[in-house]
Amino acid sequence: MSEEKTLDPQLAQLLKRDANGLVCAVVQDADTERVLMVGWMDDTALARTLSEGVVTFWSRSRREYWTKGLTSRHFQLVRSVSLDCDGDALLVRVKQVGAACHTGSYSCFDSHQLAAVVGEKVPEGGTDSQSES
Amino acid sequence: MSEEKTLDPQLAQLLKRDANGLVCAVVQDADTERVLMVGWMDDTALARTLSEGVVTFWSRSRREYWTKGLTSRHFQLVRSVSLDCDGDALLVRVKQVGAACHTGSYSCFDSHQLAAVVGEKVPEGGTDSQSES
Repeated sequence: MSEEKTLDPQLAQLLKRDANGLVCAVVQDADTERVLMVGWMDDTALARTLSEGVVTFWSRSRREYWTKGLTSRHFQLVRSVSLDCDGDALLVRVKQVGAACHTGSYSCFDSHQLAAVVGEKVPEGGTDSQSES
Repeated sequence: MSEEKTLDPQLAQLLKRDANGLVCAVVQDADTERVLMVGWMDDTALARTLSEGVVTFWSRSRREYWTKGLTSRHFQLVRSVSLDCDGDALLVRVKQVGAACHTGSYSCFDSHQLAAVVGEKVPEGGTDSQSES
């Protein structure tokens, strides 16, 4: 596969990349709705993911393009891709072939469940100065 | 709410923070399974999220802690929190009160659906040198 794909300029304008030129990509199984993993994409990785039918990330540790499944055959077949409201995160919905995690787990989030207090009701009290939703 | 909560040292050891001391946090609606948004947490934001029942992020733009909903009342009540296999991403499953997105949309990923080729079948061909799954 070529690594020279370029992104549609209108889409490229919407992206808010980090200091390394990357946006994070959340991968969700479109059949089970499970969140499988988080990867990173630069413009080329996104252009390849949008055009090749399988998910390609930028590997921050290896500093190379990484088409998920080329080694393991655990490909992620693209179902849909959306960009978030402020342009710095992608949601990639896929058909996951085999396990998503390199440990063999179905999801990368299967290994470490953290102890958390479950929120039962909305807190009372005032607002603050934030302009967020 | 206090901003001085500290993280369990064993958990703190598992976190692989970026250059700004942050890990990304994917927020998923535990009822609908929809992915709602991506935020960022430092150790304190995670400690607060784990102990207070509502989600608190670190706002990279405002450089302050940001308890989702304090202004809008659109709180995210914590259902569960898990850490991914390499320690640099969190999955926070919530009961979402109202809209998650500051635009008023339910999900931050509702606004920009990208044109993507749907992957129909696993590519043929060889492996490469990658050690990933």
